[in-house]
Amino acid sequence: MTAVRIPHDRRPRADRARQVADVLRQQVVRGAFGTGALPDERLLATEFAASRNTIREALTILRAERLIERVPSVGTLVVNQKYCHGLDRLMGLAEMLHEHGTVTNEVRVAGLLRPPRSVASRLRVPDGGSVIYVERLRRLNGSPLSLDLTYLVPDIGRPLLEQDLEHRDIFALIENVSGHRLGTAEVTVEAVNADAHSAAVLDVPEGAALLVAERLSRLDDGRPVDLEFIRFRGDRLTMRARLSRDEEGAR
Amino acid sequence: MTAVRIPHDRRPRADRARQVADVLRQQVVRGAFGTGALPDERLLATEFAASRNTIREALTILRAERLIERVPSVGTLVVNQKYCHGLDRLMGLAEMLHEHGTVTNEVRVAGLLRPPRSVASRLRVPDGGSVIYVERLRRLNGSPLSLDLTYLVPDIGRPLLEQDLEHRDIFALIENVSGHRLGTAEVTVEAVNADAHSAAVLDVPEGAALLVAERLSRLDDGRPVDLEFIRFRGDRLTMRARLSRDEEGAR
Repeated sequence: MTAVRIPHDRRPRADRARQVADVLRQQVVRGAFGTGALPDERLLATEFAASRNTIREALTILRAERLIERVPSVGTLVVNQKYCHGLDRLMGLAEMLHEHGTVTNEVRVAGLLRPPRSVASRLRVPDGGSVIYVERLRRLNGSPLSLDLTYLVPDIGRPLLEQDLEHRDIFALIENVSGHRLGTAEVTVEAVNADAHSAAVLDVPEGAALLVAERLSRLDDGRPVDLEFIRFRGDRLTMRARLSRDEEGAR
Repeated sequence: MTAVRIPHDRRPRADRARQVADVLRQQVVRGAFGTGALPDERLLATEFAASRNTIREALTILRAERLIERVPSVGTLVVNQKYCHGLDRLMGLAEMLHEHGTVTNEVRVAGLLRPPRSVASRLRVPDGGSVIYVERLRRLNGSPLSLDLTYLVPDIGRPLLEQDLEHRDIFALIENVSGHRLGTAEVTVEAVNADAHSAAVLDVPEGAALLVAERLSRLDDGRPVDLEFIRFRGDRLTMRARLSRDEEGAR
């Protein structure tokens, strides 16, 4: 059989625009245009074998995602560089983004807390025991990137409160304080619309798509010590992972 | 130093509600309540050492995410079970979700296409060469889960067009048609607000948070064969991964 040639012109424009937008989005994320300008509409139309109207509709989609901006008599510019958070290795934010700038943490609250049972059991804290709770708004180069709600086992969390939480990753502090390396973590990632209050804290419109992660980190002896609920701004961060078909795969 | 006790009552209610909502969201995702009812507000207030108003505000956040619903004189019910997409192993959707039901694929378009250069280069297709493009709306038990835009190298994509694309994962078909196992894939994950048209296709409100993945899959000999752009409904899917602190980590 010969493959069917797609009757492009007969598909709804919105379908074609989405197809173009997806490829362009990844080019932006991968830094194909740096923080500079996208090719003009005429060139994009040729490149994608699409009409100018389709290209315009694709650019409208990416503008709504706050990834690009149209600047009159200049062109279409990349306005939001997305940073990549690797899902392969357990790293703190400052450690991961050190090439991109300085991470600072606004500590919104830090102290002792009696956790709900579901948190206590994940951290293996006995019923009625306490944990240390730290809430941080994390900025990269001054602009909000994530809001982190962190529960720590008390023996590690208490001494950590005396450390430089403003400028250092909790991961690095845990390793300092405990004398142990971190081992592994389990992460769950979701896409969630920002509620009004979280949106205000992260400086995005209400309803903006956030990457929400729950991450339970363990010391190298397997003991869970750090449970975090993290809201990342969807317009500033992507996550990247490498998957293997077989369990004994390439890693 | 003794840890500071958090003066709970003096934090804004919205902060406390977010904290409660995050823990409850994960309990729902982990199936702590099955598809049944959440504990009543009074019990939740005790469990979280929070006021009834705080609990109500937390439940409002989760209702806006379409995760739970308040049913008069019944209580607060889990309405959207979220399925877990493992980010550790490269698996097709049907393969991954077989315990949860039947995945069916509505093939919206399938055929030959001359791809933009950025797609061609990732698939190592020479300039001017063609690829096979397949667009599928994927449903689990009849309800939309994801919209997948797939580019395949021509030698594998052409014979694949004759296969049962409606009922089988493209991963399984690639392995059948090529005689090779898949090896690894690189995945990028973002949170994006649904544009109006994608929202209509996926049957979610405009602006709903989507998990958007770009995934380049390779055969076991390292050759890239399948580039996909996938929109998952944020209210129906989470992704899960296991991270290691060291590269030679626990996997």
